[in-house]
Order: sequence, then structure tokens, then C-alpha cells
Amino acid sequence: MSFLEKLDASVKKNNSLLCIGLDIDLKRIPASLLNKGDPIFDFNKAIIDATKDLVCAYKPNIAFYEMYGIYGVQALMKTIEYATDDIPIILDAKRGDVGHTAAAYAKSAFEIFKADAVTLNPYMGFDSVEPFLSYKDKGLFVICLTSNQSAKDFQKEGTEPLYRQVAKKVKIWNNWGNCGLVVGATQADELKEIRGIAGDMPILIPGIGAQGGDLSQSVRFGVNKKGERAIINSSRNIIFASSGEDFAGSARVAARKLKEEINNYRFVG
Amino acid sequence: MSFLEKLDASVKKNNSLLCIGLDIDLKRIPASLLNKGDPIFDFNKAIIDATKDLVCAYKPNIAFYEMYGIYGVQALMKTIEYATDDIPIILDAKRGDVGHTAAAYAKSAFEIFKADAVTLNPYMGFDSVEPFLSYKDKGLFVICLTSNQSAKDFQKEGTEPLYRQVAKKVKIWNNWGNCGLVVGATQADELKEIRGIAGDMPILIPGIGAQGGDLSQSVRFGVNKKGERAIINSSRNIIFASSGEDFAGSARVAARKLKEEINNYRFVG
Repeated sequence: MSFLEKLDASVKKNNSLLCIGLDIDLKRIPASLLNKGDPIFDFNKAIIDATKDLVCAYKPNIAFYEMYGIYGVQALMKTIEYATDDIPIILDAKRGDVGHTAAAYAKSAFEIFKADAVTLNPYMGFDSVEPFLSYKDKGLFVICLTSNQSAKDFQKEGTEPLYRQVAKKVKIWNNWGNCGLVVGATQADELKEIRGIAGDMPILIPGIGAQGGDLSQSVRFGVNKKGERAIINSSRNIIFASSGEDFAGSARVAARKLKEEINNYRFVG
Repeated sequence: MSFLEKLDASVKKNNSLLCIGLDIDLKRIPASLLNKGDPIFDFNKAIIDATKDLVCAYKPNIAFYEMYGIYGVQALMKTIEYATDDIPIILDAKRGDVGHTAAAYAKSAFEIFKADAVTLNPYMGFDSVEPFLSYKDKGLFVICLTSNQSAKDFQKEGTEPLYRQVAKKVKIWNNWGNCGLVVGATQADELKEIRGIAGDMPILIPGIGAQGGDLSQSVRFGVNKKGERAIINSSRNIIFASSGEDFAGSARVAARKLKEEINNYRFVG
């Protein structure tokens, strides 16, 4: 089963466009977990167990695991292995390098970490993306227009703004149907335009919640004509909904609420 | 001592602008090493021991270690710990993400891997670079114009081409003197222009050898007015100069030859 088939299946089964960002922070998990053997994995496992019928994907950002060294990297691998049966895992890594180095990153993402999809940086162009494309059953999301304030520094520059150049190129690179785009939730007008370019490609949309993106517009402008193929990510507002012993139950409540809000906007048009 | 002071010191002490790229490949190291406990570290240690009086820096690309999983990441840490006393280590990671995620990557690069400097991707703009800037004693090299064929896809686009926008912005971001640029050796004309924008910022220049960049022009256009601050990287042509038991000695011969060639061009003007 390809990444896109797996994604479509989880969207359908759980009736959800919600993706939970598994961005671990040992300062924000209950103290009781810290005294046990594997706090990162135990935390992620509890979040996954409490939300796996509410989401279409999980998105761990590798940066938050790398910062805990070897232990963090091991816990990320264990998390992906635990979660990956029904729900696709998007490894948020934003990799990009020359061809033979990109091939090493692709091997790492798909064969070592065993992610279903990965995020990539387009700066270095086609040959930095090509090694990932050749994994036809995996997915890749190229960052197009990001949610941060400094996105404007380069992404909106030019007669043909950079983000539009990227959206058009990725559309061309999508020969095997395994490409998607990343568009920040704070960029509503451009999201509408980018959906027009992208056709039915999946769009990963981070930046609601902590970063202030508008949910209604993100959903309405993000989905394709069938009300699908938008992946709305929320990280800290869900996984750290409570810092107490009830963190998993609180994450479930927050995830269900957000899933339903998303669905309310999904078919409004 | 800051990264730049450490770099200037190694340039002076070894009279060298040569950087060796420690891009491990277990398929290309002598079979005898594979039968021992720690082939990646043992290979790197032998290369470092054989060349540390000939180089100004080492540059491991993290992709080639990640692809060997936990073992590779551990071997990279061990390599950096072993090498880092006199010769600065540039961790080639090309990271870039929103602010709080970039802070996690900065912590990983400088506190977990303990690199002296890191390469970054500018696509997401200032706030994706800012957390690295605040490590004032570390170095950061922002990719500007790369050596690969697809560099043209986006980097040369626009009335003000993207690479020039990046060079100008990084010059502005360089308040604490810890910024540099990455410019591929295959881009001689633009390298000359970028050195004009960069002033005395260090420029890391990969792409001679395997990727076909011109050495003479890379050196002459890459250095500042004192014949310094260009870092000429070579990876596979040095570390895999021989695949036999004499690999370290052969690497030394190749490194010395290249160091001298670089110096021949360095003061020609």
C-alpha cells in the first residue's frame, strides 16, 4: 500500500484530517514518566493509544528527538515502529542536499526510521528531491510556504514568488503520485492559490494553534474538491493539553474537539 | 575561542585552506576494518591522524552517518570528540525549521554532537537561523549557491537571483561575526560576485573533484583580500584515494597534493 493510499484510508476510517505532531519535550511531560525506563516512548505511546481513532497521521519532528542524543533517536525509532500499522507517520525532517547525500537521507528516513513520508526542503532543486521520489510507495512533502514570520524573507520574493515556483515544480515532479506540499496555516490567501496549482496533491498544513493560523480558512482553502487531501497538524496544543497524570485523556479531548472543528469547516466550501 | 578564531588558527598553523569531508561509506573502506568493533570511527580516526597537519577543518555530512542508524550516529559523535581539539569540525547538516524547532536543531548540533560549526538552509528565513546565531562562539554556514546541477531550479531565479538575496541577508545577519556562506565550486562567476558581497565572511566551497568544480577559480575567487577565509572541501577523492590497507597513507598523499595546489592558486590574485 502506498503512502497516499494509507493516508486516504486513515482519513476515511477515522473521518479525520487531523495530524498530531509528536514534538516531544521532556520539560512538559508528567514527572511520573521521567522516573521510568523510557519516558519519550512511554509518553508517545500513551498519546497514540489515546488518539489513534481520531487522526489521519502522526508527524514527529526529528529535531526534538535529536536534541536528546542517542536516546532520543532510539525513542523516535521505537515510536514509529509502534505507531505505523494503520496510521501513516510523516517524519518532519526538512532534508535537502546534493544527489548522493540526498540518497543517504532517503535511506535514513525510509529504511532506518521506517517513516511513511518525509518533509523536504526545495532550495537545492530537483536532484536533491529525486532520490526520495524513487521510493514510489513513500510520500514526500516539499516545504512551499511556511508558517513562520520570516517566511517572507525569501519565499514571497520575486515577480514569480518563490513559493509559487516551488508549487509548480513539485506538481511537475509528481510523476508517481507520491509528492505533496507543506503550506503554513498562517498563509490563507496563498494556500487557496497553491491548492489551485496542486490539484489533488496532499497539502500538509502546520501552524494552527501556537503559531496562530486560522483554522476555518486552512481547512476550506486546504482541501481538494472532495474535501480531502489536507492534513491539518497540531502539536503542542494537543500533546501538552495537560501536564498532569491525565495528559493522555486530555490529549484525546483536545484531539476530538479539533477533529470535529475541522470537519465542520471541511464541507462548507 | 570562537569558531572563526579556531579556523583562522588552523589555517595559519597548517598553512592550509583544505577541508576534508568525512563522508563515510562502509562499502568503500578496507575489509579488515569491517571485522573489528568500530569500523566507522576507526576509519575516521586513521584519516584524521594521517591528515591533521594538512587541513584547516573537517566536514562530516550527517546524512552518511544517519543512514547507518544508531551505530552511525554514535560513531559520528565519537569522531567529533576525537577530532575537535585543534581542527574545527563543520557539521554538514543543512538544517532549517521554524524558530522553536531550529532551537532544538541548534542544541543538537552544538551541544549533543559538539560541532564547532554547522551548515544551514536559508529557505525559511531569519527566524530559522536566529537560534544558531545566538551561539556566538559557534559558526554557521548558510547555503547560498550549491554545486549541483539543479541549483539553477530556484537559486538563480528572479530579477535579484535568490542566491544573491541570501548572500546579502546573511551579511546583515552577521552581527556577531559567526556567519559564513556555502558556494559550490562549480559556480565560479557567482563565487566572485558573492565574495564581493560577503566581505571577510568565511565561504565553504564544496564541489571540486567528484562534482567537477574548477580548483583554480574556486581558490582565486573564493579567498578574501588576505588570501584567507575560503574553505575548500574535498571528500571522496581524499578519504577513498585507496580502498586498500594503505588508505590512510594514500589519503595523506592526496591531501598534501591538494593542499599545495590550493596554495599555488591562493596568492596569484
